Amino acid sequence: MRTNTVKERWARGEVTFGGWLSIANTFTAEIMAHQGFDWLCIDMQHGVVDYQAAVAMLQVIGGTETVPFVRVPWNEPGIIGKVLDAGAMGVIIPLVNSPEEARQAVGACRYYPEGYRSFGPTRAAYYAGADYFAGANREVACIPMIETQQALERLEEILAVPGIDAVYVGPADLSITLGLPPRMDNEGAFEAARLRIAAACRERGIVAGIHANAALAAKHAAAGFQMITVCGDAGALAAQAAADLRQARGSAGGGGRSVYG
Amino acid sequence: MRTNTVKERWARGEVTFGGWLSIANTFTAEIMAHQGFDWLCIDMQHGVVDYQAAVAMLQVIGGTETVPFVRVPWNEPGIIGKVLDAGAMGVIIPLVNSPEEARQAVGACRYYPEGYRSFGPTRAAYYAGADYFAGANREVACIPMIETQQALERLEEILAVPGIDAVYVGPADLSITLGLPPRMDNEGAFEAARLRIAAACRERGIVAGIHANAALAAKHAAAGFQMITVCGDAGALAAQAAADLRQARGSAGGGGRSVYG
Amino acid sequence: MRTNTVKERWARGEVTFGGWLSIANTFTAEIMAHQGFDWLCIDMQHGVVDYQAAVAMLQVIGGTETVPFVRVPWNEPGIIGKVLDAGAMGVIIPLVNSPEEARQAVGACRYYPEGYRSFGPTRAAYYAGADYFAGANREVACIPMIETQQALERLEEILAVPGIDAVYVGPADLSITLGLPPRMDNEGAFEAARLRIAAACRERGIVAGIHANAALAAKHAAAGFQMITVCGDAGALAAQAAADLRQARGSAGGGGRSVYG
Amino acid sequence: MRTNTVKERWARGEVTFGGWLSIANTFTAEIMAHQGFDWLCIDMQHGVVDYQAAVAMLQVIGGTETVPFVRVPWNEPGIIGKVLDAGAMGVIIPLVNSPEEARQAVGACRYYPEGYRSFGPTRAAYYAGADYFAGANREVACIPMIETQQALERLEEILAVPGIDAVYVGPADLSITLGLPPRMDNEGAFEAARLRIAAACRERGIVAGIHANAALAAKHAAAGFQMITVCGDAGALAAQAAADLRQARGSAGGGGRSVYG
Amino acid sequence: MRTNTVKERWARGEVTFGGWLSIANTFTAEIMAHQGFDWLCIDMQHGVVDYQAAVAMLQVIGGTETVPFVRVPWNEPGIIGKVLDAGAMGVIIPLVNSPEEARQAVGACRYYPEGYRSFGPTRAAYYAGADYFAGANREVACIPMIETQQALERLEEILAVPGIDAVYVGPADLSITLGLPPRMDNEGAFEAARLRIAAACRERGIVAGIHANAALAAKHAAAGFQMITVCGDAGALAAQAAADLRQARGSAGGGGRSVYG
Amino acid sequence: MRTNTVKERWARGEVTFGGWLSIANTFTAEIMAHQGFDWLCIDMQHGVVDYQAAVAMLQVIGGTETVPFVRVPWNEPGIIGKVLDAGAMGVIIPLVNSPEEARQAVGACRYYPEGYRSFGPTRAAYYAGADYFAGANREVACIPMIETQQALERLEEILAVPGIDAVYVGPADLSITLGLPPRMDNEGAFEAARLRIAAACRERGIVAGIHANAALAAKHAAAGFQMITVCGDAGALAAQAAADLRQARGSAGGGGRSVYG
Repeated sequence: MRTNTVKERWARGEVTFGGWLSIANTFTAEIMAHQGFDWLCIDMQHGVVDYQAAVAMLQVIGGTETVPFVRVPWNEPGIIGKVLDAGAMGVIIPLVNSPEEARQAVGACRYYPEGYRSFGPTRAAYYAGADYFAGANREVACIPMIETQQALERLEEILAVPGIDAVYVGPADLSITLGLPPRMDNEGAFEAARLRIAAACRERGIVAGIHANAALAAKHAAAGFQMITVCGDAGALAAQAAADLRQARGSAGGGGRSVYG
Repeated sequence: MRTNTVKERWARGEVTFGGWLSIANTFTAEIMAHQGFDWLCIDMQHGVVDYQAAVAMLQVIGGTETVPFVRVPWNEPGIIGKVLDAGAMGVIIPLVNSPEEARQAVGACRYYPEGYRSFGPTRAAYYAGADYFAGANREVACIPMIETQQALERLEEILAVPGIDAVYVGPADLSITLGLPPRMDNEGAFEAARLRIAAACRERGIVAGIHANAALAAKHAAAGFQMITVCGDAGALAAQAAADLRQARGSAGGGGRSVYG
Repeated sequence: MRTNTVKERWARGEVTFGGWLSIANTFTAEIMAHQGFDWLCIDMQHGVVDYQAAVAMLQVIGGTETVPFVRVPWNEPGIIGKVLDAGAMGVIIPLVNSPEEARQAVGACRYYPEGYRSFGPTRAAYYAGADYFAGANREVACIPMIETQQALERLEEILAVPGIDAVYVGPADLSITLGLPPRMDNEGAFEAARLRIAAACRERGIVAGIHANAALAAKHAAAGFQMITVCGDAGALAAQAAADLRQARGSAGGGGRSVYG
Repeated sequence: MRTNTVKERWARGEVTFGGWLSIANTFTAEIMAHQGFDWLCIDMQHGVVDYQAAVAMLQVIGGTETVPFVRVPWNEPGIIGKVLDAGAMGVIIPLVNSPEEARQAVGACRYYPEGYRSFGPTRAAYYAGADYFAGANREVACIPMIETQQALERLEEILAVPGIDAVYVGPADLSITLGLPPRMDNEGAFEAARLRIAAACRERGIVAGIHANAALAAKHAAAGFQMITVCGDAGALAAQAAADLRQARGSAGGGGRSVYG
Repeated sequence: MRTNTVKERWARGEVTFGGWLSIANTFTAEIMAHQGFDWLCIDMQHGVVDYQAAVAMLQVIGGTETVPFVRVPWNEPGIIGKVLDAGAMGVIIPLVNSPEEARQAVGACRYYPEGYRSFGPTRAAYYAGADYFAGANREVACIPMIETQQALERLEEILAVPGIDAVYVGPADLSITLGLPPRMDNEGAFEAARLRIAAACRERGIVAGIHANAALAAKHAAAGFQMITVCGDAGALAAQAAADLRQARGSAGGGGRSVYG
Repeated sequence: MRTNTVKERWARGEVTFGGWLSIANTFTAEIMAHQGFDWLCIDMQHGVVDYQAAVAMLQVIGGTETVPFVRVPWNEPGIIGKVLDAGAMGVIIPLVNSPEEARQAVGACRYYPEGYRSFGPTRAAYYAGADYFAGANREVACIPMIETQQALERLEEILAVPGIDAVYVGPADLSITLGLPPRMDNEGAFEAARLRIAAACRERGIVAGIHANAALAAKHAAAGFQMITVCGDAGALAAQAAADLRQARGSAGGGGRSVYG
């Protein structure tokens, strides 16, 4: 089976940089897949992307060295199975707030006896190899999100669930549930949580990941995060278009990258 | 953030008339959005419409004054979040039969601390404004359906759940669970239920809504319903096409609008 | 090969009524295909419909008794071949203004030696039968449009081109080029042209067709037209929705079917 | 309402052969629907197919004598309702491991009082008839999957749940949970389970079904299975293409039908 | 009919800045439509966009103040008519190399007697108004491209064809046919041609347009160009994503905006 | 720029075997692209495939070693440019019957001064390299079809047009225009034409290609054809599905691969 090179890099202690896909389109996916990101994540939760579009995007990314991940809309085994069968090499699962939810997430990603994933890698077998069954439990990355105060309260229990490869911090939701504005970065309780998650992951040999941007990458890497999102397609498009128009109009006003990008 | 003009009208005590979209198409959505309905609801439950089509329909409706709602297929937080992030200003949630289910529905529509909606209004921020977070809990309409005998039995408890803007009566399902045929209107237990729901809503300052047609609009408005569906795209097309062909053939026979429209 | 029942009816002297599809959707096509029209025409010229959508619509109509036609965007052999290979049983070709253009249109619809259509009925063979080649030149209806002053000037020459099954009058374009407003019906030069076309067709055993609506059907049938469009999907939807909303609002104002429907 | 001819054949004790659709395309669906299968199942679980594509495939299959089934991604009532409203005449529900899960599955397929399906057969009414409500609980086939060791342990309890028309064995998952490789056929515990399921079904008048291929059909029929999948679209395409290329290259090496097809 | 605000600005002597859409997607179109460009052009020639996608993009742009243009794949009246009927307010027509070709292009954009456009603004009537026919010849911008040595040789003849609102210079093709590399800007014969076109347009009251980028905007505006493309979606996405990743990796190497964007 | 490995093989005198794609789907394209064909041709003429679907198929094939070709619907420069810009490495152009038509075809495939192709390889630059312009005239294969009696009459003139890499024989059309049934193979005038084309190509260093199947491959290779289609997706699916069902039913009757596949 095809090696998940991102898991390899994590195992070597390397930091990986990823791109975020919120646009349901194979050409934007191809453009992003040619920029050199270690991985790309198709966002089926907040991105404007559904399964059928995601499949074609997975196919296109699959023609490059970039490793395809998918964030599913919810911690629901049906869609987790579908994106894995379509060739995702990692699944980011939102709002995992308890060890029970973590076990449900892991189980949906793993074949028996490590989980309850149903067998049928219809497209994955073309992408990852005919011996998919033999390697899938090893190569597929299961990545629950830690993004609420609730999850923080049970952080150690969640991390203790076997089968978690990485956790992914959602700064906006984490901020909100800590009483802060929904931003990529925050001070106070947010910063404390960020450092605590990184430390707790390090102790258990779990990779710490975080939704971020290029400006925050160095800071997160310094804190031990090995999975850092540095660019989203929708936000990048808006930012560059706004900058281009601003330059053309000869003014510094207007435009700018959306905070939601 | 963009004002939800339907909620404004409800607050002023006005009756609003809506159209129902069961066809997965941006042109039918645009045609309907130019007829002057107060709101349009994209039906992802019984309509032949999935998320990706719904997004483009939301985009097209978003270019008009008509307020876009979506009925989700089930009381499931993943899809509720997805349609809100895509710009729906209201969500109709089917088969809410208990206060627990109502709390789950409300929670999926609201950011913390009023609910557990995850933050990421990727397209909504373009439609409703960059300050989406500040206004969303106020502007988004959460509209559980009351459409079973079970729900009637716990009606007051359901209506007592904080965060419900309106309830929407599904006459066909309500009729079935009351032992009546699945019709838009019925006598007996159905009529009693209809009036009881309207009264219970009025007491609590919750808007009463109902799936109906143009002929029933006056009756429902008289009973206090402020959210009345008066036309569905699929049924309207069938009705007019049948009428046209009948006229052409010079006969009164055949055709007619489907009861399912 | 499957019999073209519309050509059969024409041969028996019957009037046929058709529906017009401007919406790129299989569900609207299915709804229309269940209303009892003799034929439906997918409009790839002014309709908002492209080839890939038209194929699926042809497949859905193909499951009913209604005969599928397509109006192509232009008198161009590539697209004529494509829609025939996809299973259209008739092709309406716009703006045929000369016998040369008529010969080009006919040739694109017919296999050698009657024309230069290329062989490969990839989907048509499933719909119309494995013996498609043997019957296609006979069953496929070739229907040039007569819709300009130029075409009127050479009407007899055009009708003399072998292989034309019917001509289809486009009232709006005909009106414009006669100096009249673009309407479904007009007086004066338009009316004279209408009658002249019907008469010229009758003389040569060619079917006369016309774009119309239900109210005009009787008038056209009386004049000898055997192919009459009586309803368009987009216009029907708009008309019924507007009527429903008007009824609900309890007023006679606003709305109405667009003249472009 | 349209008769479910597969249920009729089952009632007569006949064996039915089905095809499996993993490709999201109306033309492959049409090709398969013209081969003479008794039924076709659109696989929304492991197939690369989502709802919107499935609808158009249902429409196209609906123009033939072949009966359309759908396998949903998960035992979730929202999607079960959606595919039934779109015209599926049977639903295969994966991973039904307990009588509770079986009751949930059955309930999602049936209107009150046999279940809790919501009424709104928007497209089904066109395919199966305007009297859909009257016949749906009778004509729609509810087909839970028995495909785990867990399910085997509670087999009799599951089969005792009222409303199950057939059960469908998933050989790969059943094999895995029995500690065997994921194959279409296996010896030992798998074979014992296969025979036990067939026997248990026979006792209760429930149809036994199984995912298989053409080579296994006779064996399964002999064991009493009346619902046998004998061909999948993706695997058939791969097998024939590989064979053609092998023949052309004049060698016996390479290619072959994927085990996942 | 809706006013073409870009033509208004041109008439007032203003410079307009446009964005270029090569991605077939409504969300990228919506993002671009919110950046404040005066117009957006959907590129059906070199962009990866076909008609059906373009329609939905036109619908979404139509909800904003930005004026939608389309570049068609070729100087062919079928597709020119289709994009105008879908609501384009301007058409850019590639490779217009002679007055004959210019007349063909203009004729396809105009109703009789100014041209031979066929009437049926099915979607345009919703966007631009029910009185579309009365205003279309005035509001629709016809914009042939001047992009070859051949066209330069007959520049004055081409510009003398009545009905041209603007010409659009394609720097890459113009460069190639002048023996230069395909770049946005060039010296020598290219620069001479650029200034000659601007001057010739100025003399005749025709707007000069040019494909460019933000850095070239001031130079072109100074030369009298009033229609300047300053950003393309595909290139902007690639540029920003590459910059983000470069920043994250802490290096100045790699990436950058493609010259083709 | 990416090397066209098929042209390399042709230059070495090797025979190449291709697959034919008539299904508009990325998954069938991916399945076919993993079977080991030297090239795959997306058929936009008789296949049920339009441009937007073809782009995604090109993207998916582009992730493999298989070289992507496209057959365009007609000898029309707009669509030839579009498929090349989307990454096709070869274009098959139907019905080239004269040297004039051949020159038009070649010109559409080549940049100045060898032709009049417009520059803008928006997606091709990602697939074939940023230096696309420098290599495109060399790497892109221009492949006119010889498939009529007319073309035979001017065969030598056509082959003398500079820039033709290969010609592709369409047996069905060639047969028809020779008065024979539309088959993959025929005797008499067809066989004479086949050998004459092969010989004429050999003399001029042009590759001879032919639409065929696996059974005919050896015969064509022996005659000197170096470009042989041996499998079509639609036909392969039908053939294997029919064979599977026949095997299951235990009978030799029914089914079989369509002659149109």
